[in-house]
Amino acid sequence: MPVSVTVGLRCDDAAELASSTRSHTLIPASPSLLPLSGSAKHPLEHTHPTSELAQPLNRTMSSPGQLADDQVYLGTYLLDRLAQLDVKCLFGFNLTFLDLVEEHPEVQWIGNCNELNAAYAADGYARVKQAQINSIREGEQAESKPGQATTHGGKDKTQGGVRGLGALLTTFGVGELSAVNGIAGAYSERVPILHIVGVPSTKLQKSKALLHHTLGNGEFTVFEQASAGITCARAFLQRAEEAAEEIDRVLLAALTTARPAYVTLPTDLVFVPVPKKRLEDPIIPMRVGFEDKNVLPTGKKVEEEEKNRLQFVVGEIERLWNEAKEPIILIDACAIRYGVGHLVRDLVHATGVKVRLAPMGRTAIDEDPSNGFGGVYVGEVTDPKVKEVVEKTDLAVMVGSLKSDFNTGEFSYSFPTEQTVELHSDHTLVQYAHYPSVSFHQLLPALTKVLKHKPNVTHPPSDRGLQTQIPDGDADKVVTQAAFWPMMGKFFEEGDIVVAETGTSSFGMISTPLPKGSTFVSQVLWGSIGWTGGATLGALLAAKEAPKPRRVILFIGDGSLQLTVQEVATMVRLDLKPILVVLNNDGYTIEKKIHGETAGYNDISSWKWQSMLDFFNAYDQPKPTRSWLAPTRADLERILADDEFRKADRIQVLEVKMDKLDAPVALEKQGKLSAELNAA
Amino acid sequence: MPVSVTVGLRCDDAAELASSTRSHTLIPASPSLLPLSGSAKHPLEHTHPTSELAQPLNRTMSSPGQLADDQVYLGTYLLDRLAQLDVKCLFGFNLTFLDLVEEHPEVQWIGNCNELNAAYAADGYARVKQAQINSIREGEQAESKPGQATTHGGKDKTQGGVRGLGALLTTFGVGELSAVNGIAGAYSERVPILHIVGVPSTKLQKSKALLHHTLGNGEFTVFEQASAGITCARAFLQRAEEAAEEIDRVLLAALTTARPAYVTLPTDLVFVPVPKKRLEDPIIPMRVGFEDKNVLPTGKKVEEEEKNRLQFVVGEIERLWNEAKEPIILIDACAIRYGVGHLVRDLVHATGVKVRLAPMGRTAIDEDPSNGFGGVYVGEVTDPKVKEVVEKTDLAVMVGSLKSDFNTGEFSYSFPTEQTVELHSDHTLVQYAHYPSVSFHQLLPALTKVLKHKPNVTHPPSDRGLQTQIPDGDADKVVTQAAFWPMMGKFFEEGDIVVAETGTSSFGMISTPLPKGSTFVSQVLWGSIGWTGGATLGALLAAKEAPKPRRVILFIGDGSLQLTVQEVATMVRLDLKPILVVLNNDGYTIEKKIHGETAGYNDISSWKWQSMLDFFNAYDQPKPTRSWLAPTRADLERILADDEFRKADRIQVLEVKMDKLDAPVALEKQGKLSAELNAA
Repeated sequence: MPVSVTVGLRCDDAAELASSTRSHTLIPASPSLLPLSGSAKHPLEHTHPTSELAQPLNRTMSSPGQLADDQVYLGTYLLDRLAQLDVKCLFGFNLTFLDLVEEHPEVQWIGNCNELNAAYAADGYARVKQAQINSIREGEQAESKPGQATTHGGKDKTQGGVRGLGALLTTFGVGELSAVNGIAGAYSERVPILHIVGVPSTKLQKSKALLHHTLGNGEFTVFEQASAGITCARAFLQRAEEAAEEIDRVLLAALTTARPAYVTLPTDLVFVPVPKKRLEDPIIPMRVGFEDKNVLPTGKKVEEEEKNRLQFVVGEIERLWNEAKEPIILIDACAIRYGVGHLVRDLVHATGVKVRLAPMGRTAIDEDPSNGFGGVYVGEVTDPKVKEVVEKTDLAVMVGSLKSDFNTGEFSYSFPTEQTVELHSDHTLVQYAHYPSVSFHQLLPALTKVLKHKPNVTHPPSDRGLQTQIPDGDADKVVTQAAFWPMMGKFFEEGDIVVAETGTSSFGMISTPLPKGSTFVSQVLWGSIGWTGGATLGALLAAKEAPKPRRVILFIGDGSLQLTVQEVATMVRLDLKPILVVLNNDGYTIEKKIHGETAGYNDISSWKWQSMLDFFNAYDQPKPTRSWLAPTRADLERILADDEFRKADRIQVLEVKMDKLDAPVALEKQGKLSAELNAA
Repeated sequence: MPVSVTVGLRCDDAAELASSTRSHTLIPASPSLLPLSGSAKHPLEHTHPTSELAQPLNRTMSSPGQLADDQVYLGTYLLDRLAQLDVKCLFGFNLTFLDLVEEHPEVQWIGNCNELNAAYAADGYARVKQAQINSIREGEQAESKPGQATTHGGKDKTQGGVRGLGALLTTFGVGELSAVNGIAGAYSERVPILHIVGVPSTKLQKSKALLHHTLGNGEFTVFEQASAGITCARAFLQRAEEAAEEIDRVLLAALTTARPAYVTLPTDLVFVPVPKKRLEDPIIPMRVGFEDKNVLPTGKKVEEEEKNRLQFVVGEIERLWNEAKEPIILIDACAIRYGVGHLVRDLVHATGVKVRLAPMGRTAIDEDPSNGFGGVYVGEVTDPKVKEVVEKTDLAVMVGSLKSDFNTGEFSYSFPTEQTVELHSDHTLVQYAHYPSVSFHQLLPALTKVLKHKPNVTHPPSDRGLQTQIPDGDADKVVTQAAFWPMMGKFFEEGDIVVAETGTSSFGMISTPLPKGSTFVSQVLWGSIGWTGGATLGALLAAKEAPKPRRVILFIGDGSLQLTVQEVATMVRLDLKPILVVLNNDGYTIEKKIHGETAGYNDISSWKWQSMLDFFNAYDQPKPTRSWLAPTRADLERILADDEFRKADRIQVLEVKMDKLDAPVALEKQGKLSAELNAA
């Protein structure tokens, strides 16, 4: 079955035109070279045409070989692997892998407007997929009751192996470099993404012609360099024999470490046959310690030593737990990334202890008192009632902490190290002791079996410190931040996916309640402005895979949306149905107040957000859209109560006018805290 | 004079809010750490709060010290250096260096919508500035006549030192990584840009907190890695004593090599005083060979040896020239980048020889028969009449060649190496011989003195192979590509800046005449789609610095503009006046024809281009704009003849409907060529 394919390259017109003359010839859109090693020539040193250089623009890709029954094409192998790992969307820009994608029953190509947005989308997709996996795990344990230990962790053969994985396809050079910031963000925040980079054929990689999308100097290591520090594993496919194994290696690394991985796919390897049988072995993330096969000086077996070590750590934590009067559990980002929310929930049910969530740990478990939820803890930024209780604790058990500045109220945690236990995916800290290779996957179920019932006594269970009361305000004026966020809290419904842009929106969400089954998505650590513009697209596509319909609600400022605005057009094209809440203060920044209206560097451009969906909607059959404007609080109240709005049956913009100097409570706290510390 | 400053960091709300509490305290928007070396910890290894980590969100920048009369702040030093080098626009995203910029009499802050667009803009700015410098050089030599040798090269003390330089300011991490593709493109196509990266204070760089915009693992080398392969020099400012010297070093490297350079500017060094005197020494690009101070085995002085070597090469070329019957000169990209167009023009006038331009060499000299201009040469893609003549040559003298695929008709140059001379900035090739350190800056004036008058005899001077005739066509149908480009050729006026997006537009321009004093801007080698969206902004700002008003005309397809569309909003905000010609074939790609309408991966979103300027124009006093639609050839003719349109007194969109399967002649040739070679 010959198939016409161009692989993973920015599609330019020359190639398109060339390809119009072919039918079943396989032509890469932009052939080029990837000399993966070798001496770099001076850029202008060699430019005489030689037969070596006299290569056609488009070259014949290796023709699809005959497949035996027990074989698949390598390209199909890669797609099958993604499908096995529940990746149903492959993001990228204007690329044509991919009749293989077109033909693939499970993996869909999502063309983005540019590569950075595509990387953001793959990230958002992976996060929401992970949350949905976590949610399914929670559901599986619905019968567990407080006080009852479960053995879920022990039964989970994948050791929490199923992961929300994202996939991104770009061309080499121009494409991959455009995506670098998006991949770095996923690395920073521990989101596994497979970055597939379409490269020229392996033969062409051995020459050094001055092809477009190259640096013109035969130097390709810059592309490797750019990805080296922001991916957990890289594979440069060169030979059919090992290509499938290499794909599995980087996928395994991505899933095990929850980080992006990188693989180059040369045009001439797409259709090489590889054994189908390999697909029968699922890719299961490694359990921490499994690779640790050193002979022990004591002569003991590794497995036995590991068991003893685990028991020892359990004993140490049990000792502290017994001594503690008011322990708390603090859940953070990596509990979500590694899918152990349900294990924490089991521990909470078993012990009756209260939990707090860090901002990056929100919706790790349903934020419900029955789950022990007692509020969000952000150090000094925390709501005073919550803060007072938390800081009375004499044992803080932290699960999956990622203590970045904005996630900790600028490093203002109050727990002494002597009263702290940290559970991570690959190590555990108890007071000052560090236990490598002890993972919360094993530790949490073990603790659930032994730790005593010990509810916090000083914390009234109903007060979670969230803003549920909507303060009074003038109905005819712009809504205040103080009123806006609790209003949104009331608007949220079960299962909503709430995406908050870094800054005003992520701080506003700190004090906003989130309902059962909801998922909170924000890039708190990496904090790349505009990230949510792409991530929301990914979230929408992931939500489509959920068993029940889920609304996706984005909060973003007008300035931030300008970075990635074109991806809204992709949402329109794909008929996705987000609620895009644009907080519009006319691009006014507080710097202006200080430096005066004339400070040109504070200007940002001013857009008609009510026109956006129309601008992106030039289809013969226009997509259904709806734009709402809330210049006053009364307008906002009316819109939020509108059934048309609430049902989210089409893409909607809600533009909310806000005061130029207003800010969410948590942001004000963070600001004051910073100023105080500055003055100190 | 205390000044409130935040340096080069993405400005998020927390920082803004914090800064609202200060007046003259100096607070970086996003303090962080840059441990430039040191052992990397496991990301999750250490998260106990310690006093080391308990840092405020915003930290006081070193207060401005008292300046002695002979001192300037380091930040001012940097800006003064840029101003000396005629950089009047500093591009970047949403950053607040910069009261120093605000106060600077010459350097203006241009806030972009995102960092990639900013890098593209800095690139476009530098290219047009370089062209304007070249144009001034040409003007200085206006009195030179054919046959007269000049000594311009000898008199130029800067050795062609003045360069069109661009400047870009981003934050570290998120910001710089977003710009990487733009910097790589400038590296590839030899455009000098100073990339200034705002980083936390030198003190903070020594700790390892989990700050936002970091990878959360204390690992910062990724940022260096990403820039290492795409910049000619990097400086990580650490100490006041050497900071000014370091700035000069990287600027010198950028100007000498015509490549981007990278400098980090820590918050605490902005206001350190440095001696003013250093600014009195201009930064002059090094002449090739100057740094070559090896003791020669022969005991001769280096200068003498260099002189002898130059004379030898001149002799070699003279010998070939004398033997040749029909030599030609082929001017390419690096003649523009290194500003030697006027030197080539002198040589042409002295010898009467005809010149051809490569696509990347267009407008290196005025494309006028009086300058010996005889057409555009692109190998097999060349117009047959031009090709026939060029390929009869028995000596091709190439100046500044950059023989990339699209610049050479897919490496289809016809010149045998034995009949080829290549003149470059830092070496010369004569037949098979390679002469390092012999630069066209010295060689061109020397050749002008000695080479004999030798006009090509077989080439009718009036036929330049460009499409000046507009083919007949149906007035009521969409304009054909064959008619469109010559129509635009007639539309162009003296001094126009023509920016062509890679693909249809750059191929369309190959056969289109360009008038006197015009500048052609295209990214032929790197070919990053969407580049012109940012580059046009830079071109517009550079054009404002020209002695006479210049129109800026962009040609771009609807799909390409989607990548960088937000930068049009910056053009609106700054009241710039481009003509944005959007070639709209409804995002239809030829792949669709082959694979059928249903192939989802060929879809791109469909936008209402007539609404774009309105969407970006929500100002209280809306900017003047005008949008034109040409659904038919007759409409286009009417618009092109309209004085309102021609005078370009406001930003304008011209949306031209085109047939889905139509393509420029050169692109068709390139496509056929590729297909033939594929089939071979």
